[in-house]
Amino acid sequence: MANLIRFGVSIEATLLRNFDRFIRERQYENRSEALRDLIREALVEEEWEKDEVIAGGIAFVYDHHHKQLVNKLLDIQHDFHDLVVSSQHVHLDHSNCLEIVIVKGSSVKVGALYHQLKSMKGIKHIDILKTTTGSRLK
Amino acid sequence: MANLIRFGVSIEATLLRNFDRFIRERQYENRSEALRDLIREALVEEEWEKDEVIAGGIAFVYDHHHKQLVNKLLDIQHDFHDLVVSSQHVHLDHSNCLEIVIVKGSSVKVGALYHQLKSMKGIKHIDILKTTTGSRLK
Amino acid sequence: MANLIRFGVSIEATLLRNFDRFIRERQYENRSEALRDLIREALVEEEWEKDEVIAGGIAFVYDHHHKQLVNKLLDIQHDFHDLVVSSQHVHLDHSNCLEIVIVKGSSVKVGALYHQLKSMKGIKHIDILKTTTGSRLK
Amino acid sequence: MANLIRFGVSIEATLLRNFDRFIRERQYENRSEALRDLIREALVEEEWEKDEVIAGGIAFVYDHHHKQLVNKLLDIQHDFHDLVVSSQHVHLDHSNCLEIVIVKGSSVKVGALYHQLKSMKGIKHIDILKTTTGSRLK
Repeated sequence: MANLIRFGVSIEATLLRNFDRFIRERQYENRSEALRDLIREALVEEEWEKDEVIAGGIAFVYDHHHKQLVNKLLDIQHDFHDLVVSSQHVHLDHSNCLEIVIVKGSSVKVGALYHQLKSMKGIKHIDILKTTTGSRLK
Repeated sequence: MANLIRFGVSIEATLLRNFDRFIRERQYENRSEALRDLIREALVEEEWEKDEVIAGGIAFVYDHHHKQLVNKLLDIQHDFHDLVVSSQHVHLDHSNCLEIVIVKGSSVKVGALYHQLKSMKGIKHIDILKTTTGSRLK
Repeated sequence: MANLIRFGVSIEATLLRNFDRFIRERQYENRSEALRDLIREALVEEEWEKDEVIAGGIAFVYDHHHKQLVNKLLDIQHDFHDLVVSSQHVHLDHSNCLEIVIVKGSSVKVGALYHQLKSMKGIKHIDILKTTTGSRLK
Repeated sequence: MANLIRFGVSIEATLLRNFDRFIRERQYENRSEALRDLIREALVEEEWEKDEVIAGGIAFVYDHHHKQLVNKLLDIQHDFHDLVVSSQHVHLDHSNCLEIVIVKGSSVKVGALYHQLKSMKGIKHIDILKTTTGSRLK
């Protein structure tokens, strides 16, 4: 589909033997596929460091019996409405909720949203997931 | 709401002064709230190491023009239907999709699902988000 | 030895029960000792983010048969002589050396030294270890 | 020097353009050098997960006025004398010491040593650095 470019690479024999074993164990189709994966991971890491436009998720677990918390969480998300794309909500048990908010925008702003949510009383756990809009990885 | 237990803690004066500054900057309400956060983070990390029942997310970015990939991604998720709770899909641009799947279950099985998805040709980036069912953090 | 300050903390009963189990398993002496550890980890992480004066290590593995590399590694370390405190060298086998350089100074400059070493041809692996001068953790 | 093997790789044009920019910014000599780096990083990560023979460092910061601690730290290192290769000590200020111990052996045993040191009263901060013996990366 995409416009592929072919070029030659030189790797030490022992290193390549080990990489070929790694490729088999991880069930990659071939060396190019495995190398593309490593390249893309390095580039996504760089996007977050350089504050490019990124995509990601913020997940938080809380007790929905905190009525005030539920309202504040919505308020904060609306303050960042340009970042927040959508959210997904799972009822983990009678009290606990897991919500994952998908974000797209500046990695620095995503960090600000994350810290604001993190400081809320009633949030049991929160974490960021760092991925990409894919636009530089075509 | 929850049944709170109060106890005494001893901290070195300089360390406490620095921690109080940290608490203010991160906008925690008080020391107890900040300490609860640190405790919960340590416990969630431990849950994943010990293969307890965890909750989390797997996010992957792909080009939906890979028709075969779309079908395979669904097949794999169905193979792990006891783990996968729900999924959320965002159209990042004309070609790129971001999907975040919420999982709940064994952390080892979540790792297996992650590696199976990761090896698929056409997945541009994939990452795991590690959070908790909250049941041990009440 | 240090000037200890005692204060009260409130934690939910279930969370505290789990934390007490964690404390026993990790063989901490008491709750204060475990909490001090969590506080210090949070503060050290913050020191690196805020570019405070930090201490740390940069480890790299290379083949000492690359004569030119050995000289260049020394040159680079001398360019950063204000950061580099000392270094330790281990002969892993006939060809491989592990060198760990202790650094003290700006975390941004340590990052610059790390990236300069990382790009050198012949470095097989390199990693940073992030710790502290301890001055804010007394 | 090493026995190099040359093979062809196919990469999408946009991805390759971005990777070439990454290579320039990180000052790699060429694509092969950058790809070897990514491969070695993936293999080193795998060595630690699979409990291969690894090399690494454990760094800890402490106040040397704790006389008992200094003795205990030595005792523990001697209990793991098959793992510990050498150590390097830096006087950070009047009270604080940074010690980096180089270890070589099972990654699981290194984890055990790390946790034993971590639980010691008086250790202000401790961290592990994960690198390699280089034997699979030739």
